[in-house]
Amino acid sequence: VIATPIKTDEKGNVSYANVEKACKRVGSNIHRGSLVIVVSVVGIGIIEGLIKETLENTSGLKVGVDFGLAYSPFLIGVEQTLEDVKNRKRIIAATDKTSLKKASAIIKTITKNDVVEAENVKTAEAAVIFQIVQQDVGIALANELALFCEKKGIDYPQVQRLIEASKSDISLLSRLSSLTPPRETYLLLEEVENLGVKLRIPVVARELNEEMFKRVISLIREALKTCGKPLRRAKISLLGISQTPNTKDSIKPLTKKLVRTLERKGVKVRVYDPYFSSHELTEMGYPTKKNLTENMEGADCIVIMTSHERFKRLNLKRLKVIMKKPAAIIDLVGVVEPNKAEVEGFTYRGLGRGVKKR
Amino acid sequence: VIATPIKTDEKGNVSYANVEKACKRVGSNIHRGSLVIVVSVVGIGIIEGLIKETLENTSGLKVGVDFGLAYSPFLIGVEQTLEDVKNRKRIIAATDKTSLKKASAIIKTITKNDVVEAENVKTAEAAVIFQIVQQDVGIALANELALFCEKKGIDYPQVQRLIEASKSDISLLSRLSSLTPPRETYLLLEEVENLGVKLRIPVVARELNEEMFKRVISLIREALKTCGKPLRRAKISLLGISQTPNTKDSIKPLTKKLVRTLERKGVKVRVYDPYFSSHELTEMGYPTKKNLTENMEGADCIVIMTSHERFKRLNLKRLKVIMKKPAAIIDLVGVVEPNKAEVEGFTYRGLGRGVKKR
Repeated sequence: VIATPIKTDEKGNVSYANVEKACKRVGSNIHRGSLVIVVSVVGIGIIEGLIKETLENTSGLKVGVDFGLAYSPFLIGVEQTLEDVKNRKRIIAATDKTSLKKASAIIKTITKNDVVEAENVKTAEAAVIFQIVQQDVGIALANELALFCEKKGIDYPQVQRLIEASKSDISLLSRLSSLTPPRETYLLLEEVENLGVKLRIPVVARELNEEMFKRVISLIREALKTCGKPLRRAKISLLGISQTPNTKDSIKPLTKKLVRTLERKGVKVRVYDPYFSSHELTEMGYPTKKNLTENMEGADCIVIMTSHERFKRLNLKRLKVIMKKPAAIIDLVGVVEPNKAEVEGFTYRGLGRGVKKR
Repeated sequence: VIATPIKTDEKGNVSYANVEKACKRVGSNIHRGSLVIVVSVVGIGIIEGLIKETLENTSGLKVGVDFGLAYSPFLIGVEQTLEDVKNRKRIIAATDKTSLKKASAIIKTITKNDVVEAENVKTAEAAVIFQIVQQDVGIALANELALFCEKKGIDYPQVQRLIEASKSDISLLSRLSSLTPPRETYLLLEEVENLGVKLRIPVVARELNEEMFKRVISLIREALKTCGKPLRRAKISLLGISQTPNTKDSIKPLTKKLVRTLERKGVKVRVYDPYFSSHELTEMGYPTKKNLTENMEGADCIVIMTSHERFKRLNLKRLKVIMKKPAAIIDLVGVVEPNKAEVEGFTYRGLGRGVKKR
């Protein structure tokens, strides 16, 4: 059984009335062993919320026990060519492993293309919505830049061709960053005023990215608080000063700024990076100790700043012994498994990681 | 001679003092036949403005006559891996063809990679800045979505992996759109309020994209005004109702809305699409005539809505005979060459095209 309810949204008001109606219809026809696949785009939490509940209530059966529920939306982004649709692998999530396998097989047969299985339904819901939001933002930015071109006497289609031709196919959009983002945006923002054009998206983006620094400080403060410690007089070990993972390269401006700011707040800071000797670090003005162990000894908190391979292999059990108890791990680059850190008794905080328990 | 001045920007204030100083130094060493290549990122108009002037003034020589000036910035975007840098083709522009060829050869030798030659310097300057702005916006959006994930209990790195794995490598960012952008953004915006998170970029994006409709109307109004005609009582021919170029597919909501709005404003509208018969168009409620010629007969203005191949091959000379004089071409999808249209006596307006003369 495949359900294809259509979600309705008008001027910003999302209504799930149609979805609910469709679920009731499907629910009254469900039997043991059925598999319901939702192929419409829904909001985050809707599958295991509204849809699951409606199906269970109308059928009198249990999801995951009596019948399966899967989510694999058909993402017809506006302005996508058929080529795009063909190249896109369908995302699939389900409430249980069996349904996931079944749904995968079905979708593969229909689309004749590979699929990507999500670890849980919520993640899939987020991935789908985020892609659409990214597209929306991308279009809006293009619209703004095009308007700027009109005023400036530049041909946007020509600029676009140039960008397409020069670009490697790295996707810049989904990269999360705790790093200092490109300041060159100001080169554009400055001349915009004279033209009477507003570039709202780049302005907001600049503000947001400048604010990330404060966000990092508040993550640290909050994690220490959970450990029952004030930021002032905490011992914090910063791991990583390289801009690029696994290379010895230009130093992040963020790290320097963070060290200074924390020191001004009374924090005892130490800095470590496997690609720089303690001598080099000292020369650059960073407080440091001989090696990783000594840098983390007695620390209340470590802040991982670069996704060096070395930091992915951090031995949490050993870390626990070296560091103060309780201790916190602030992971700005997503290299530590949140659950593993919490099992070892750490307070874990990561940028964009909503999985913390304490 | 290769100049490598470093631009300085602090808290949003761009200063070209360093660039100017470097240009003076280079300028005083220039001789006939020299080639100056600027490899720093500069704002739009700086190469042929400040830099050219400073070089000419200090050297007493003329760009394009005595020496060459080229622009080929080294784009070390923040958080780009070395791999990214290697895959990116360098953009090159120059003040004259000879310098362009020379600079291309030099850059190719240095980077051991292909280059992309721009048609003019301004376009190259815009392409470079726009890429950085896109990255900045992408990072800001990722930051916002990550914060949302934290509050919602979703793991952003997991979502990111899912997006990367499912994505075809179409770049969504640089696509300009006059089409109705994805409304699904509202699915996300709605639940954000309850979480106490703000999603500034998607909100602004949504507003902007909703405003594009008004923008299209004002482009039409403005073009007609240039022809000395009021919008009211104008005869306008809309070309294209398909969402996807060269296919007969779902109708653009924009077209329907545009037809209704223009009609309400007293405009006589006709609609044409080579993939739909006049019978089909009439059935869908669009005012139409038998064929392309009849649809454009006596029209004051055509609005090209879809980049069907057919519209790229529009015979402007013939169009001129059929349409009223003077007539306007509004090109929302960039299929008509602006200069060609103006040579034929049309008033040309295109989204993002700053090349119009009248």
